[in-house]
Order: sequence, then C-alpha cells, then structure tokens
Amino acid sequence: MINVGIVGGTGYTGVELLRFLAQHPKVKITTITSRSEAGMAVADLFTSLRGHVDLKFSAPADSGLDKCDLVFFATPNGIAMQQAKALVQANVKIIDLSADFRIKDITVWEKWYGMQHACPDLVAEAVYGLPEINRSEIKHARLIANPGCYPTAVQLGFLPLVEAELIDIGCLIADVKSGVSGAGRKAEVHTLLAEAADNFKAYGVQGHRHLPEIMQGLSNIAEKTVGLTFVPHLVPMIRGIHATLYAKLSRKRKTDLQALYEARYADEAFVDVLPAGKHPETRSVRGSNLCRIAVHRPQDGDTVVILSVTDNLVKGAAGQAIQNMNIMFNLPETLGISQIPLLP
Amino acid sequence: MINVGIVGGTGYTGVELLRFLAQHPKVKITTITSRSEAGMAVADLFTSLRGHVDLKFSAPADSGLDKCDLVFFATPNGIAMQQAKALVQANVKIIDLSADFRIKDITVWEKWYGMQHACPDLVAEAVYGLPEINRSEIKHARLIANPGCYPTAVQLGFLPLVEAELIDIGCLIADVKSGVSGAGRKAEVHTLLAEAADNFKAYGVQGHRHLPEIMQGLSNIAEKTVGLTFVPHLVPMIRGIHATLYAKLSRKRKTDLQALYEARYADEAFVDVLPAGKHPETRSVRGSNLCRIAVHRPQDGDTVVILSVTDNLVKGAAGQAIQNMNIMFNLPETLGISQIPLLP
Amino acid sequence: MINVGIVGGTGYTGVELLRFLAQHPKVKITTITSRSEAGMAVADLFTSLRGHVDLKFSAPADSGLDKCDLVFFATPNGIAMQQAKALVQANVKIIDLSADFRIKDITVWEKWYGMQHACPDLVAEAVYGLPEINRSEIKHARLIANPGCYPTAVQLGFLPLVEAELIDIGCLIADVKSGVSGAGRKAEVHTLLAEAADNFKAYGVQGHRHLPEIMQGLSNIAEKTVGLTFVPHLVPMIRGIHATLYAKLSRKRKTDLQALYEARYADEAFVDVLPAGKHPETRSVRGSNLCRIAVHRPQDGDTVVILSVTDNLVKGAAGQAIQNMNIMFNLPETLGISQIPLLP
Amino acid sequence: MINVGIVGGTGYTGVELLRFLAQHPKVKITTITSRSEAGMAVADLFTSLRGHVDLKFSAPADSGLDKCDLVFFATPNGIAMQQAKALVQANVKIIDLSADFRIKDITVWEKWYGMQHACPDLVAEAVYGLPEINRSEIKHARLIANPGCYPTAVQLGFLPLVEAELIDIGCLIADVKSGVSGAGRKAEVHTLLAEAADNFKAYGVQGHRHLPEIMQGLSNIAEKTVGLTFVPHLVPMIRGIHATLYAKLSRKRKTDLQALYEARYADEAFVDVLPAGKHPETRSVRGSNLCRIAVHRPQDGDTVVILSVTDNLVKGAAGQAIQNMNIMFNLPETLGISQIPLLP
Repeated sequence: MINVGIVGGTGYTGVELLRFLAQHPKVKITTITSRSEAGMAVADLFTSLRGHVDLKFSAPADSGLDKCDLVFFATPNGIAMQQAKALVQANVKIIDLSADFRIKDITVWEKWYGMQHACPDLVAEAVYGLPEINRSEIKHARLIANPGCYPTAVQLGFLPLVEAELIDIGCLIADVKSGVSGAGRKAEVHTLLAEAADNFKAYGVQGHRHLPEIMQGLSNIAEKTVGLTFVPHLVPMIRGIHATLYAKLSRKRKTDLQALYEARYADEAFVDVLPAGKHPETRSVRGSNLCRIAVHRPQDGDTVVILSVTDNLVKGAAGQAIQNMNIMFNLPETLGISQIPLLP
Repeated sequence: MINVGIVGGTGYTGVELLRFLAQHPKVKITTITSRSEAGMAVADLFTSLRGHVDLKFSAPADSGLDKCDLVFFATPNGIAMQQAKALVQANVKIIDLSADFRIKDITVWEKWYGMQHACPDLVAEAVYGLPEINRSEIKHARLIANPGCYPTAVQLGFLPLVEAELIDIGCLIADVKSGVSGAGRKAEVHTLLAEAADNFKAYGVQGHRHLPEIMQGLSNIAEKTVGLTFVPHLVPMIRGIHATLYAKLSRKRKTDLQALYEARYADEAFVDVLPAGKHPETRSVRGSNLCRIAVHRPQDGDTVVILSVTDNLVKGAAGQAIQNMNIMFNLPETLGISQIPLLP
Repeated sequence: MINVGIVGGTGYTGVELLRFLAQHPKVKITTITSRSEAGMAVADLFTSLRGHVDLKFSAPADSGLDKCDLVFFATPNGIAMQQAKALVQANVKIIDLSADFRIKDITVWEKWYGMQHACPDLVAEAVYGLPEINRSEIKHARLIANPGCYPTAVQLGFLPLVEAELIDIGCLIADVKSGVSGAGRKAEVHTLLAEAADNFKAYGVQGHRHLPEIMQGLSNIAEKTVGLTFVPHLVPMIRGIHATLYAKLSRKRKTDLQALYEARYADEAFVDVLPAGKHPETRSVRGSNLCRIAVHRPQDGDTVVILSVTDNLVKGAAGQAIQNMNIMFNLPETLGISQIPLLP
Repeated sequence: MINVGIVGGTGYTGVELLRFLAQHPKVKITTITSRSEAGMAVADLFTSLRGHVDLKFSAPADSGLDKCDLVFFATPNGIAMQQAKALVQANVKIIDLSADFRIKDITVWEKWYGMQHACPDLVAEAVYGLPEINRSEIKHARLIANPGCYPTAVQLGFLPLVEAELIDIGCLIADVKSGVSGAGRKAEVHTLLAEAADNFKAYGVQGHRHLPEIMQGLSNIAEKTVGLTFVPHLVPMIRGIHATLYAKLSRKRKTDLQALYEARYADEAFVDVLPAGKHPETRSVRGSNLCRIAVHRPQDGDTVVILSVTDNLVKGAAGQAIQNMNIMFNLPETLGISQIPLLP
C-alpha cells in the first residue's frame, strides 16, 4: 500500500482526491492537513464522504507528512514551494496540484503569479505531469507539477497537429470555457449562483496565468515559440472544460486529420477521439478522467477546429494527479480512476 | 457471473443501470433491447459508455431474454406486465423498474395508470423491492416490483415513526421535490431547459400516481390505512429527490427520535441518519445509492419534520434495482453500488 | 417629483430598486449611499444600469438624505434603526427593506436578530407594509417596515383562510422554497454556483427569522396566536419564492375556497388567483410585483393546499417597497411597477 | 395606433413580442394566430401575460391579417414566404422574424434551408432589418427580413473593423455561445434540462444556417467576400448570446480600436461599447434590446478579440423587430423597448 498524505484538503481538488483515493485499492490515506479546519472530521465538511473517510483534518505541524510515501499538495499557489524541499529530502514523493512548479522560467512564473519563488532549484527538477507527453519522465520523478485544467484540455487538443508540423504555430487560438468549480471553493461574489447562473462571460482576455503554461508546453513540442491567443470563459455549470481550438493548416493539406488523432491516442487510456463529425459534450466526461476530442475542418477549408473536453476537477486536476501516482508507483495507469462518467 | 438482460435501455434508468452493471464484478450484460434504436451501438447513444459497453441495442424479438438469469425492465408502464409471465415461466428472474407490479389492488392500479392490467396473478406474487422493509421476501422472489423514486424517499423517511406508532397516521404530509430527470428522457416542452430552469413549481397536487404506492407501503407497516397529502414539485436540477415530511406526534412525546432513527437504520448500508440538527443536501447522494435522513422537531413542538434525500435515478431506480439483484443472487448487498457521491 | 434617497445600494434589493425607480415617472433619485463603494459610479458596479443611472455612490456622511422626501433603506439589519429617528425628525419618510421595524415585540426581535434594538419607540409607530392588509395605515405612515420575502408569500397565501376562520390555526405548515438571490449579494461558500447548483436542501428547520414575522402577521388577523411550522429551502435558481401551504379545514367544509380567494383579491392589482386546478410557476412572476396563488383540496379532503409564488426581489422586497411609496404619496398603486414578467 | 397582427405566437419570439407590444404606447394587437392553439386564450398558454393580453389565438383563416397595418411572422421557416405576397398586396407591412427573406441568393437559401423558395421576387425587395446598418432602407421598407440571433451579435461585433478596413477579412473566426431558448419552444430531447444543464457543447461545426447570413452581411460591408469560421455552442442558460470574435489586424496597427468602436456606435441607442478592458456578461442585457461590446488586443498583438453580447430573444429577435417597426412607422426608435435589463 502507498501511504498518502494530502496537504490542503478543504477545496474541490481535495474532496475529489479523496473520492478517488478512498476507494483506490493500493492507497492508504494516512494524513490530511488543513490549517483552518484542523480537528474537524473530513466527513463533517464533505457529507459525501461519510462512511468512506474517517480521518480528521490535522494541523500542518502535527501531520507526519515526512512519513508518507507520497504527498499531494491541493493548496493555493505559493504553499507547496515552501514545503517541497524538506519532503523531497525525506524521500517523500510529491505531486503538486498547484502552479508552483509548472513554469520552468522563474522570471515568467514570478511575473504571472506575483510572488518570489521560494524554491527555484526544484522547479528545474520537477516533471510536468501530462502523461500523454511525459510518461517516461513521470515514472522516475520525485516531484510532479500537475498541469492546470485549461492547459490539459488545450495541449491534448493541439498536440497531434503540433507534433506533425501541420499548422501555422504562430497564430493559434484557444477559446476555452470552464465550469465554475474551476474558480475553487472560495467565498467570492462573482461566482455566486445568483451572479453566475443564467449568465455567460469571458474573463482575463488581457492575460491569464494558464497562457504561459500552455505556451511552454506547446513550444516544447514544436521546438520553437508558439503564438497563442487564449480566451477563457465562465459557464454556468459546476464541472467541465470545453476547449474550442483553431489553427491554420500550413501544409500537407491532404492529411487525414481524423486518422492522425486516432493514431496518436490509440494507446492512451484517457484520451478518446470521437468519430468524425461528432461534438463532445462536457457531461460525457463528468466525474471521469477522460479527455474526449473531435476533429473538424469546416467546409474543408484550411482552418482546423478541434473540440476537446475534460472534467476540470478530474483530468484537469485530481484524476490526472492519481494517474501520475499510478505511473510513479508502477501500478496500472487506470487503477482507481476508471469510473464511468455520470450522465445525465 | 449473472447473465443480465435489459429491456428498454434508452432512458435514464437504462443508462444508469448500464453505468453500474458494466463495472459490476458478478454481472455479464448479455442483451439490451430497444424497439426504436435496434441496431445502434449503445455507446453511440450514450457517449459516457464508450469503452465500457460494447453491445448494440437489439430488437425485442431477437433478444434471447429467455436465456438470461435476470431481466431488468427499464420500460414505460404497461410493457413489463405483457412480457413478465413468459420470462418467469422460463425461470428468468425479473426486476421491473416500472410501476406495473407495485400496486396490489388491481382496481386501484387501473384507475391511476389508466389501462387494464395484463397480468394480475403476477401482481399477487411480486415482491415490493424496498430492501429496508422486505429483504427476506426479496431474497426468494422471482419478480421484483422496484419502488418508485418518490415512494422510496418518503417511505424510508416515515418508516421508523410509523413502526414505532408515535404519530397520528391519519394526516401525514409529504412535500417532495424532484430533479427533472425524474420525468424521463422524453421530448416534452415543460421539461426543456428554457422552461424548467430558473423556475420552481408544484404539479399533480390533485393526485399523483405515487400517492397510492406510498399509502399502500405505509399502511402495510401501520396495519391500517394512513391518510397522506402528497405534493410533488419540479426542481431546476438534474438529479435528486428531497422529501420534507411532516407528522404529528400522537404519544410518547419524550421519545428520542434521533436515537430511534439511528437504531432502525444501524444495519442498513444505504440509509444514513445524519447527526441531530443537520440538513441533508441532494448533492450529498448524487450518483450514489444512499438515502440520507435528518430528524427535526422545530421548537420542540409536536410536529416532527423529517428530511430525506436520494438520487432519484439510483436509490430511486437503478441502484435499488441492483441492490435487489444482489440480495436475490446472494451477493454482498453493496457489491457494485458503493460509489462515493459526486460532489461538487 | 418625489426626491428619493437610497441607503445601501450595492445589494440585490438595491439594484432592483434602481431598476424600477430609474424609470418611475414620478421619482427623482437624488442620492444613493454606500460605505464600501463611495465614489464609484453605480453603473460601473451594475452594468445593467448603464445609460439609466448616472449617480455615484456617496459616503453616508455626504449624502444629504435629510433633503429627500423619502429614503429607502436597502441595508443589512441593524442599520436603519440607527438612522431612522433623525430622518423622521427631518420630515423624511422612510421605507425600510430590512427587518429592523417588522417585529412589534422588542424582546422577540432582539432574540431572533441577536442585537439590542436602537430605536424601540419607532417600532411602535412603524406600519407593516403589506398593502393587501394595511393599505389605509400605509397611506399615512412616516415609517414603513417592508415585509420579508417569505412572509409576503406566506401571509398572502394564508390570509383569506384565516380571515374567514375556516382552518385550524394551531397547526399551519409553510414549506417554502427560495431562489438563491434571497441570501443577498454576499461572498459566502454555501451559495456559490458550484455548491448550490444541481442541489436542493432545507435549512433553518430549527428556526428562521421569518417565523416570528409570519406568526405576528397571521396572529394579528386571527386575533389569537397561530401555530406554525415553517421550513425554508434553497432552490438552484436566481429569483423566486414558492410557498406550499398546508392547513386543516376546521369547519364550513362546503365553502367554495376558489370563490373565497377570488373575492378576497378581486381588487388587488398585484395578487392573481389562478383558475381552479392550476399550479403557479415562479417564472410566471419573474421580474414583476405579482403574487400568484392557486387553491387546492386534494382528493376533496380536509387538508387545503395553497400554492403562492412571488419574485423575492420584487413583491418580496423592492417592488413592494415602491408599491408602498405609491400609496404613501397618493399615486396610482401600480405606477412604475406594472412590468410584464420575463418568460422564458 | 398601429394595428398589429402576429402570425404564430406560441413560441418564444411570440411571447416576447407580446411582452413588448402589450405595453407599447402606439400599438394595438388586433390578432394573433396559431394553427395548433386556435381558440385558446393567449394568457392560458403564457401565464406571464395574464391581465396584459386578452386575445385568443385565432385560426389563420379567420384572422383578418389583411386589415392590419403591420404583421409580424414569428413562425418556423417556410411559412412567411407563402403568405407575404398577399399581405404586401393588401398594403400590410411585414416584419418576418424567420429566415425566409434574409438571404438574397436563392440558390444559397435553398441549399441551407432544404426547401424551394416560394417567393423569390419579394426576397429581392426585402430589407435586412439590422438598423445599425440599414436604417434608411428600413424606413421605407414594406417587408423586413429580421436578422437571426447569431448574425446580429456577430455583425455588430465585426462591423467597425470591417468598415475601417483594418483586418484580414479572409480568416475571421466567430466562436459563439447561445442560451437554450435559441432552439425554440419545441419538444426535443437534446434541449431538455436533464440533457442540457450542467453541460456545454459545440454543434453544427460543419455548417450552420447562420453562416451564409453573416457572410452575406459582412461581405456587403467589405464589398468583397469574407472568409468566416463560425462555431456555435449551447450554454446551459435560458437567454443570451456571447460572441467571441477573432480577427487579424492587417494594417494601421496604431489605430485606437476603442475610439473606433465608440465613434461608430456613438449615436446608436442599442449598442453600448464598454470601457476598455471590460468583459460584457450576457445577464447585463437580459430582457433588453441592447448589444454590449468590448474591444481587446491581448498582449498588444495583432489579434483583435471582440466580445459582443445580446439577449437572443430581444436584440436577436423580438426587440429588434419592434425597433424596425418603430423606424418604419416614424416613431422614436426606443419606444416601448427601453426596459432596463433584469439583473440578477
């Protein structure tokens, strides 16, 4: 059994980690910390876990995290970078669901996240935990930077086109829509039901923190810097990300894009390329670790339209984190995360 | 392995049966029928099942249902009663999720369902599939009448009070609220999102088909006829039932109702009595087979208020059906239906 | 023109007052105060008001409220009671949308609202602003206690039965459901879309502040103390209240209840009694000052079921406040508040 | 007073026309037809209209439409083209809210709408009713083709850029999102609340009927054929369209786009250009005839991002139709359609 600790379990990625880990056949959750809720039973905060999770939240100081085999950070940005080094030195593996270790260029990270980085050397070592790209590095990593929710859907969508060098990577467009749980379990006015329901809006058009993360990932694949316009939107739903991606074919216009995508993801358990002509729905992945993708070329023109959907809390966060854990601990990659989506 | 057939798998109870059965360790789904969709792959209709269900819908005539160990009817009312006898005679067990076998009094059934009953003798034999009341009869049944969604939440809520003879059973009130999936996957105007969202209404105040079913169940327990006012409402949500139940204490006013409920359901895996003072949310059981109950006595008066929540498609339909199957086939009662609720 | 001031215009009752008052033909809004947003243009906070409201929020000290003919308090509880006396002494009329002046028994008020009352003598003078009951007192009032949202829907629903002395007033039940805007425009976790959407729950079963308000109102009519069980619920919608009311007929069981309700409200512009057998929807009053009511006697028994719907922000708050203003200033009662509901 | 008839008043554009026209100071609704609901009171179908509309639906044959000054067609495609000629010959003005007269090229229309056009000569005469472009032609028109909902939001968004010849019109992208009421009040499975809520999807990526309409409009302005990729999406909300528009600046890169938009729409009562940096929300125009637009140039690059929101049933249908009526009958353009949006 893997002895697992969770730091910061009171948010949505926390409860989602617990949903999967509590029934994972190779995991024992030994500790879960929360500064604000220390002493409270986890199942008192999240009624859905009654009968499945018997732990109480513990104060960080009393948590014994250094005795764990693996620690998940489900914390706000800026926490993991302060605690990672001690854990790594204690031979504890780390999967950080926050953004602390995602961006290799410290200057870029500090600009977008508005703070000084506490641990630049571990940034260099950290492996970006997108298994469909980095599986072999993940296998041997001590520290995983678990990708953001938008970056997962966008990178998986563009990946085959970029790898095959079929598109003009100077002017990619990602028009992306997210359910409200992406904003976290934080008391804020703009995500109240009375504000966000029966409503739709873009936000962060001038710049969003996931822009440099996506650009880094796609540029790595392309081996040169991509140009990306990234526009996130807020959808009046709880879970789900829908990325609508636009690219211009630059050459090989006769390539069978459907076949390209099917071949690229043929061995991936969590990426499902839909038949030609289909449109994926976010609910078709609700509660599951899947990314479903459809490939379109409207009117057989030069503009490719890729539709990519995930559950932002699963493949976009907790599920992908456990997928990374499975790889790191040499378990079957789907173990404990092969639940069928909840529909309707 | 139990060889299972499903009749009528294109509705919400159908897809929900498939979600559970496809991952049930002791079940092999051998056939699924649909008159309208014969020949179509199930996963083409329900994208959520891609990779998990490889069957095609078959026409009822070609279905080989009589070779199954067990057949679930997930059909509109009036279908199961026409096909049940032949299957029973072929030694196939049946769990009917429709209302055909729920009401023992044929005259009452015919009045509320507006058709002549095709198979009254099997009504007499059928066992009402509410395990918390009828577990021992279910064990040996050939034909299960799976309860309605409202009746499950209401009966489990009132049950301890009625058994303990603490309330005036002549004037029970059940003010019950349901998500829209309770109306089924049928093209109708009143359940369109543009009609039902951001809206709330009662319906069927003059009489709803679940009224006689609830009255029959509670009267059986009370051993005399109960009086019930039952008002269903439509909630702008997908899944969930919330029953708010009112009863007058008739005697033993010092009884500890919290203890009464906890004791009654102590051995029930799927009924969770919340701590005193709590209010269950429908999302705390979303996607799960649980019924969560809270017991209140406002201002310590004589009116008891019971709050009872279920997922109408699970404990109110498909999950309870599989719970019945587990009992009938001598399997652990929770096998394949112990998923943790999806929250948020 | 009536010179109107608004204290505390940053919440939902504030923006709703502005929606109506900005197009009211006899009103000039002269000042609107907000401690937190002083200096900000109102239309910057509420984009919906761009081009209709040119004011900026002013700090309370600079507001010149004492020059107004009328001041609306759209503030949290506990503010109006501190400022009312000075304004009354300056001959400014007041309509308080908070709860400060609703409860005549100061002890009861202090118990439910958890603070000491700052101005008990004005409580005695204040007129409870439910025009369908108190129209003549409202006409001459200096200070109106505008009713709460639940109390409006519940009292209008029970009123004809109580006046006609037809029911057992010792055991009334009000099972009431509200949209989330009833909780106000406050940053809180439990009303986030990701918490409250696709969910339904009761709350405050042990006691809610609107219980003593409703009991006071109904007891005044009955001329003796009523017994009431009041259970509020949160509905995943923005606006709307649906009260499902239960009462036992005590006598005159042959009374035509439909005719009773139609007669009682025949002259009321804002109470609409639906034809027999109908079920009002909350959306049928969305954005309007209407209360629609339906009267049922299921199975012709002794239990009467009344369905009463309002928009909690209009007839339950801002619309009723303006209705009171129209009465106080001798204007046609429907002036400026006769908008047709927004459906769908 | 203008004597107005409505053909086909049982859908969402019908009830929305009635909401505005019933309180329009210069309109008398004399007849409203419905084949399916003839004889029924309009207010029995739409409870929101009780007390405001006393008409019954009449059968088309008995309707006396030829006595009207103006007839609105709120019918499915293919109806207006059969009845328009007779009305025009009877000197009745027509505003068609369907697509029958929007596309000038009959071949294109017949291809996208899948039927033969019954009245090509009136297509030539018809004026496309987008006042911000065609106001002077509308003034003298006998027959108005009222624009589609997507085309209104998209054309108003691109208009200033195209007129100013600032962008590469060969590769425009319109990623557009609509509330579910855009699909109409039709019994269909995919728009049920249980299907469409908590869900997001694209549809019609291979081609949508509004594509040729938008291309015709923008090409007219550009005086050459534009290239457009148009991807519509379904949002789990009732009303609202949000167009996210992408274009490449081709020259004059120093142009102040904010000033350009503000100048272009300075005299338009129903187009509101937001301050720089803002993101319009669909709810900020809910129930109103407004289009709100924001102009962005992320990271000061060459890609312009325009955000344009409307209420699909108002500026995208009924409100714009009445705006056209006001122009045709020489009334103030805002008469009867200047309601403030309903927020929240």
